[in-house]
Amino acid sequence: MSNDWADNWQLATGNWQLAEKLLPNLRIRVNPCWLIRAIRDYRIRVNPRQIQCLLYFPAMTNSLEVIPIGGIGEFGMNCTALRYEDQIILIDAGARFPGGGSGTDLGIDIIVPDISFLREHQEQLQAILLTHGHEDHAGGISYIINEIPLPIYATPLTLGLVTARLKERGLYQTAELRPLEARKPLKLGPFEIEPLHITHSFPDALCFAITTPVGRLIWTGDFKLDQTPIDGKLTDLTRLSHYGEEGVLALFSDSTNSAVPGLAPSEFTVYEMLRTLFRKAEKKIIISCFASSIHRIQIILDLAQEFDRKVVALGRSMVSNIKVAAQLKYLHFPQDLLLSRNQARNLPGNQLVILASGSQGEPMAAMSRIAVNEMKNVAVEQGDLAILSARMIPGNERVISSMTNHFYRRGAHVFDSRRSSVHVSGHGLRDDLKLMINLTRPQFFIPIHGEYRQLKIHASLAHDQGIPLERIHLIENGDVLQLSHNSVRISDKINVGRRFIDEGILKEVHEVVLRDRRYLSEDGFVVVILRVDRSSGELIGVPELISRGFVLMDTSEELMELTRSEIIKLAEETPMEEKQDEEIFKEIVRKNLKRFFRKKTGKRPMILPVTIEI
Amino acid sequence: MSNDWADNWQLATGNWQLAEKLLPNLRIRVNPCWLIRAIRDYRIRVNPRQIQCLLYFPAMTNSLEVIPIGGIGEFGMNCTALRYEDQIILIDAGARFPGGGSGTDLGIDIIVPDISFLREHQEQLQAILLTHGHEDHAGGISYIINEIPLPIYATPLTLGLVTARLKERGLYQTAELRPLEARKPLKLGPFEIEPLHITHSFPDALCFAITTPVGRLIWTGDFKLDQTPIDGKLTDLTRLSHYGEEGVLALFSDSTNSAVPGLAPSEFTVYEMLRTLFRKAEKKIIISCFASSIHRIQIILDLAQEFDRKVVALGRSMVSNIKVAAQLKYLHFPQDLLLSRNQARNLPGNQLVILASGSQGEPMAAMSRIAVNEMKNVAVEQGDLAILSARMIPGNERVISSMTNHFYRRGAHVFDSRRSSVHVSGHGLRDDLKLMINLTRPQFFIPIHGEYRQLKIHASLAHDQGIPLERIHLIENGDVLQLSHNSVRISDKINVGRRFIDEGILKEVHEVVLRDRRYLSEDGFVVVILRVDRSSGELIGVPELISRGFVLMDTSEELMELTRSEIIKLAEETPMEEKQDEEIFKEIVRKNLKRFFRKKTGKRPMILPVTIEI
Repeated sequence: MSNDWADNWQLATGNWQLAEKLLPNLRIRVNPCWLIRAIRDYRIRVNPRQIQCLLYFPAMTNSLEVIPIGGIGEFGMNCTALRYEDQIILIDAGARFPGGGSGTDLGIDIIVPDISFLREHQEQLQAILLTHGHEDHAGGISYIINEIPLPIYATPLTLGLVTARLKERGLYQTAELRPLEARKPLKLGPFEIEPLHITHSFPDALCFAITTPVGRLIWTGDFKLDQTPIDGKLTDLTRLSHYGEEGVLALFSDSTNSAVPGLAPSEFTVYEMLRTLFRKAEKKIIISCFASSIHRIQIILDLAQEFDRKVVALGRSMVSNIKVAAQLKYLHFPQDLLLSRNQARNLPGNQLVILASGSQGEPMAAMSRIAVNEMKNVAVEQGDLAILSARMIPGNERVISSMTNHFYRRGAHVFDSRRSSVHVSGHGLRDDLKLMINLTRPQFFIPIHGEYRQLKIHASLAHDQGIPLERIHLIENGDVLQLSHNSVRISDKINVGRRFIDEGILKEVHEVVLRDRRYLSEDGFVVVILRVDRSSGELIGVPELISRGFVLMDTSEELMELTRSEIIKLAEETPMEEKQDEEIFKEIVRKNLKRFFRKKTGKRPMILPVTIEI
Repeated sequence: MSNDWADNWQLATGNWQLAEKLLPNLRIRVNPCWLIRAIRDYRIRVNPRQIQCLLYFPAMTNSLEVIPIGGIGEFGMNCTALRYEDQIILIDAGARFPGGGSGTDLGIDIIVPDISFLREHQEQLQAILLTHGHEDHAGGISYIINEIPLPIYATPLTLGLVTARLKERGLYQTAELRPLEARKPLKLGPFEIEPLHITHSFPDALCFAITTPVGRLIWTGDFKLDQTPIDGKLTDLTRLSHYGEEGVLALFSDSTNSAVPGLAPSEFTVYEMLRTLFRKAEKKIIISCFASSIHRIQIILDLAQEFDRKVVALGRSMVSNIKVAAQLKYLHFPQDLLLSRNQARNLPGNQLVILASGSQGEPMAAMSRIAVNEMKNVAVEQGDLAILSARMIPGNERVISSMTNHFYRRGAHVFDSRRSSVHVSGHGLRDDLKLMINLTRPQFFIPIHGEYRQLKIHASLAHDQGIPLERIHLIENGDVLQLSHNSVRISDKINVGRRFIDEGILKEVHEVVLRDRRYLSEDGFVVVILRVDRSSGELIGVPELISRGFVLMDTSEELMELTRSEIIKLAEETPMEEKQDEEIFKEIVRKNLKRFFRKKTGKRPMILPVTIEI
């Protein structure tokens, strides 16, 4: 189709009844876009006013739409919809954790993307494809599956970790899990997806080559180009370069480390660094990494064997992931390497490795509990070695520092990513990203996975690699990126957002509740109980005040006394007809007390008047 | 005195009446420690039982005590008491900010050390000496002066910044401010203090050489050994090395960067980096640094002149500090360099520098407001240059990222300390620290200013420099470090802690209120209003429920209905005598509802039953 029609395509209607009524001589059911073309090319005569009306119906196009629901312009919760005509596939279903800071998380345990868009187009959804099993790509799967049952496609390890999550939520029985294998293409409606092996800090991570009617996309997922991966499985550069030769319409590439110069060091370098530490260790080794860092866990298990130590795995996710990965043969170790805490109780420290979850200093996780000696049978001793073999997620530095300080206080030697190379990133640095662009030679380039800053820097990098600026597109969550075989543009914006999940109530916490919690956390509340005469509306007796989080009640009797007098004065001054309307009187009390408290204390507590009729 | 007496010294009494009664033939008033020595050396005969009793009176010793009130094992709020006999001087009066994280700060604006110890020993306090005017060393001054009026000694610039703080709190009129000058010694009771110039990211920062009856201390304050300081004033290495030759009992040295290898780059290097950016800038330059980074501000003002730009300073602290520093001749610039926002309104972007406070992404500060285009007459435009010339304080990364992302979205080029060298630390790196140790050659070494991790690493560094382990002492807040001319030990522990200040109410927020706020922020509250018959104690009607931050009330009518039934059932089941005691019945309701809500929702809202007698 020629470009001059592009602007009309998005306005084309999906309303068949009307189309047929307007053009009754049209015998075949055609896509409205084609209809428009037919009108133009075959000069079908029709009242232009009616066409106008026809054109402004909801869009249905034969161009491809890429719609990020989460993960663009933010860290974590990656989730993107690909739509062609009336079929949608989802790539990834990530989550992120609130974490960090000195305040509170408002009772939130996990944050996932708002899936209203998916709910509204439920009938179009075909499947979810997961690139890999890290939380920021697969951690939100239960929250989607719970509402929209969909087949889940992923490699066996990713499915294994997802299974554990689904079982926790009681969703496993009904879930449809379908294994993907690298280089085994899969057809889902108009999408032909070839999963390709790509190296990342997760075994069997995938990138997707997606062939659609408008052209081919390369979706990298998370990656770095590791030439010495722990499992020996290299990135499928052959297929990627093959597609580069054949033609790639658009490359969607991981931007996490776009600001970091150089080529990402191999996961293998962690082996060397940790080996040095293991060799020197004279007592216990207490090490923490992400429970989903299966490569890192393999390194630790290997080194334990090399230095004749047994391993005690601690933390629910750590124990469960090791079990799943071992069953699926992604982790290799002899049966007797792992001991329980109880079995290891009498083992001398120099024969022991404690492998604990909680590298981000989460207060209830194993590592933090060990740091404050609250883990039974695991006491930190002078000369022990504590290692945090993980990235520090921005925002978590304070809690992590607090944890490492506890280890230091107990006489342990501490190594973390600030002090030595006990961790390498799983995401490609600038030279990795350049190589990806040069291999795939895309017509269009769209940076994904990262904050706006990282996307922007990745875009400049792509420009430096020779991609013209007009072929580079910066998108944000909710943007509808429309691709045809020779154009890319943002055609629409859908509503996106975040859902705050409280694992306690196993469901979403409403924005209003969160707003109240934030409000309460800063200024507390005052409930004012007003006894009023049912018939006259007059205030009876002295109002009762209940307050928490505002001022210390024990020492604020004077303020409370003043407040009560203020209310009584207010009641006296308020005309009878206003007092008789309960709601009006409550509002008067609320407004006046707000002003009163602000003047007296500078604070704005939540004020809740209640009337009790007597 | 010989060492075997050391244990008794601290038990020695200050009770002269009793001493004279016991030893009436002792004609001169002597220090009790000497008294003990006299008893030993001159074999004065005395009933040993009486001596025993004498020895156990409250301690007053002729050894020196160093008592950190804040700033050891944590970042910020540095404050240390030095006591000899009954005289105390304070070094620094710092604060820290809650900041960071995705949650809330519980209504807290500033955190300062708990000064109960100072309050209890108010009559012993002689003065406060400030090393320099940064917030972490001088930001808590008002909260001490407000309760304990004391003379404040510091260099003119530090006093200038302190004056602004005192005026805000209405404390300036009564405050005694006394200027210090480098190399001009000051005698305060048993302490002879020589202020020495030391380089830091603050002009006229001081280190103190403190000569006491037991020996000389070197207290570095914050420092780096900058060989090309902006104001040309070098560290007084001459006096430091002179004291090193003469003999230093103990060195107390800044540990902030003890984990970072190398020598700290000079503040001057920032000149070069910023000059490169200024040269390339085609539009507005919007730059933020700490308002107390006077050197950095000088660099920015100099570069503005060099590139023919005018400067608009934004943010209360920025404007006030520039004014104070200019008046005191610490900042040098022509009158017409600074414009108001209004004056600069029509100036083209390439003739403008916006110098804004808020480098940590504080949402209400100038820089954040510019980022979201909420600053009148300052719109971010495509091609503007946004520079954060400051350290990112751990915990603030998320808010800072969110701010820089806004600049990126508006098309600005952004430079921060993650991406380029637009900031250098004001604290010495490992090689600076080694030089300090080698110059002063202390008998004892005590790392200060830093988290436990940094103190520990600094201690290892000192050991590597040849100081024996037994002469290195790691202390924590509240430790009473007792120094004699040849020994150092922790002899006692005083109560220390933090005070959380709400600037709104201009006073301390009690721990109980904070605990309630934290609690409310996670689970909200439910107030249960029970109408009871005054005589029978029977429940009248249906209980009223008021709740916020727990569940969304609009959609939880069912839960509230169940709750009301639960309470009615409870009232029916409770024996009459328990119901007649209001407090007992309220406790029964609270306990049962707690269990009920936990079962139904997994949450633990704060439950507050109220009875209204009718």
